Amino acid sequence: MSEQDDPFERILQAYAESVRAKDVDAFVAIYADDVHVFDMWGSWSLQGIAAWRAMAEQWFSSLGDEQVVVSVADARSTVHAEMAVGHASLAYAAVSASGAVLRSLDNRITLAMRKTKGAWKIFHEHTSAPIDHATLHARLKRDGAA
Amino acid sequence: MSEQDDPFERILQAYAESVRAKDVDAFVAIYADDVHVFDMWGSWSLQGIAAWRAMAEQWFSSLGDEQVVVSVADARSTVHAEMAVGHASLAYAAVSASGAVLRSLDNRITLAMRKTKGAWKIFHEHTSAPIDHATLHARLKRDGAA
Repeated sequence: MSEQDDPFERILQAYAESVRAKDVDAFVAIYADDVHVFDMWGSWSLQGIAAWRAMAEQWFSSLGDEQVVVSVADARSTVHAEMAVGHASLAYAAVSASGAVLRSLDNRITLAMRKTKGAWKIFHEHTSAPIDHATLHARLKRDGAA
Repeated sequence: MSEQDDPFERILQAYAESVRAKDVDAFVAIYADDVHVFDMWGSWSLQGIAAWRAMAEQWFSSLGDEQVVVSVADARSTVHAEMAVGHASLAYAAVSASGAVLRSLDNRITLAMRKTKGAWKIFHEHTSAPIDHATLHARLKRDGAA
């Protein structure tokens, strides 16, 4: 299977494009209606496309004139006919209107995808950063530092 | 598909039994050799069964005469021939030698499994708790509290 045909790579690309454009409809379009998300921030669990759309609306509207540029590292996926699973590290860089990188933050992402009527959709997403045992603080990677 | 046949339910049961027994071999037996883990604690990423065995050895030997009782909530899985994905909330209760529950902690778990030579093995695991935006502290659920 070539990389171009990998549904995980293509969905990550669509994810990055919709985040950069702050396009809620394009963002939501890559998720299934019954999506179940374990998100890195806030709630224990989010269920259904309406809750996930609300998250995206709040996220994108909070950005003002900044853009978020998502880049992917260490992507791995397993595709089996109508189902696929992938995981990667994502870096989220906040870029100012003048093009300066203001800050950057990494997470770990796992996506489960199914193919319905020819289109791949995410039905489960899990994002996180590990936690330090001693302090219970998130071990965030910032600006590419380990 | 009946619940008894669900590879996710069965693997979670084997996981819980091996943790309760602090049986490293039984624990490792439910994972594939090429397992890739995004664990809630410590490292950004762990790769390969040797690294994962070392984690289990350290975990189980740290427990002294306590036992860890794992219980499962909100388990959902999707099975497609040779591949399965499941997610759930797990509660880890530390129980003293006299049977008292000393403390309890929840996580969110996602497992990707493949069937090889008739046996289901975990090839990707992602566990986490969400993070509070303001403090960057893990939002841990303890003792069943929300």
